Amino acid sequence: MKIKRYNKKSSYAFCFGSEPVKDLLKKKRERVLKVVFKEEGLKDSNVKKIFKMVKEKKVDFEINDRLIEKTAFKENTYVVGIFEKYECKLNEKKNHIVLVNPRNPRNIGTVMRNMVGFGFEDLVLIKPAVDIFQPGAVSSAMGSMFYVNFRYFDSFEEYKTIFKKHNIYSFMLDGEKEIAEIKFEEPFSLVFGNESKGLAKKFKKYGKTVFIPHSKNIDSLNLSMSVGIALYVASK
Amino acid sequence: MKIKRYNKKSSYAFCFGSEPVKDLLKKKRERVLKVVFKEEGLKDSNVKKIFKMVKEKKVDFEINDRLIEKTAFKENTYVVGIFEKYECKLNEKKNHIVLVNPRNPRNIGTVMRNMVGFGFEDLVLIKPAVDIFQPGAVSSAMGSMFYVNFRYFDSFEEYKTIFKKHNIYSFMLDGEKEIAEIKFEEPFSLVFGNESKGLAKKFKKYGKTVFIPHSKNIDSLNLSMSVGIALYVASK
Repeated sequence: MKIKRYNKKSSYAFCFGSEPVKDLLKKKRERVLKVVFKEEGLKDSNVKKIFKMVKEKKVDFEINDRLIEKTAFKENTYVVGIFEKYECKLNEKKNHIVLVNPRNPRNIGTVMRNMVGFGFEDLVLIKPAVDIFQPGAVSSAMGSMFYVNFRYFDSFEEYKTIFKKHNIYSFMLDGEKEIAEIKFEEPFSLVFGNESKGLAKKFKKYGKTVFIPHSKNIDSLNLSMSVGIALYVASK
Repeated sequence: MKIKRYNKKSSYAFCFGSEPVKDLLKKKRERVLKVVFKEEGLKDSNVKKIFKMVKEKKVDFEINDRLIEKTAFKENTYVVGIFEKYECKLNEKKNHIVLVNPRNPRNIGTVMRNMVGFGFEDLVLIKPAVDIFQPGAVSSAMGSMFYVNFRYFDSFEEYKTIFKKHNIYSFMLDGEKEIAEIKFEEPFSLVFGNESKGLAKKFKKYGKTVFIPHSKNIDSLNLSMSVGIALYVASK
């Protein structure tokens, strides 16, 4: 197989750096196609650990500086993991995070990192939505993406029909209750709109609506920050 | 004056887009050198408002597509504000946010946006630190930088000598108390280390140390997220 630079249509994706590759090997071994090392990197103690892990787990590997340079997201990357793309089964008993039409790859990566940080595992993406395997998203997630179950749906209604038992909390600037006053009843879905428009009015009919209080001197908190604060509060 | 692309040594900096330029004109009129418009942008209703504001406030302006293209941080920018760089006087009665050696311009921009969102106005930067006027920082701040008083110090000790009355809360992965248990006593300084290394051990002797609990499956929350959560909690 000739490996090309990442492309939305390709069947494989990349993750970058020792820690993310370690998470990939630990959590998604069955998806790994190959691990590529930069020769110079093999002197680094973290990279050495990955090299050992790759051999132990009998993963295909290659030392190939050019391939690293072609596929890496940032300069000075010593190791790249190549893996088959996948979708996951969501856990119907766990709490979900729902992003409606997210556009920014970095935001989605940061959201995954915060989810894992605060003990959430299930991520719902309502289309149209950013490609979660885009290098910018994988890179911001810093390995945490391999701990997250994610699945795309064509519409929020489709998601809601399947996960009927989840209590919906939609985050809106004009939400009816302040986040600190809410007692989140499990299993719940925390729902967030996209970076520029937030959630459409129709979300008012799906469950409770929530706001995070902030000063009038900013339009809104940014998406990953709102999600981060919501996860922090809801995980308490 | 011939305007050049942003450079750390230049005496002026840029802000991008209607809302940030509006904030610049509102909060830092005395620093504004010029506002530049893209001809095509003058049809846009938000840009029209800025145009009106510029005339009312007797600000120097120019319609110059090439200058916009040369100085703008993102494509499709209709308006750029050019302003003299400045430093601010910190308010000694207010609570401060202290970033020790921050490196990432976007983080610092997001921190400013969150500060304004949660009612904080005073930002301390301990050198070596990112240049706050870098386009990436100004752009992430989305106008909120003009609401923030910021000042650079050569060392934390220098800052502490001047602001003796501030109670220090240093955020460290191995902090002694969980954030939810802390009663922040005003005036306080919330202190954060840099993106990769956090705070040095010496911060344990300066005041209280605090941690934000998170799962072991991530190394740490990212800097702007930690600050955002701390601001949210401390502002309650």
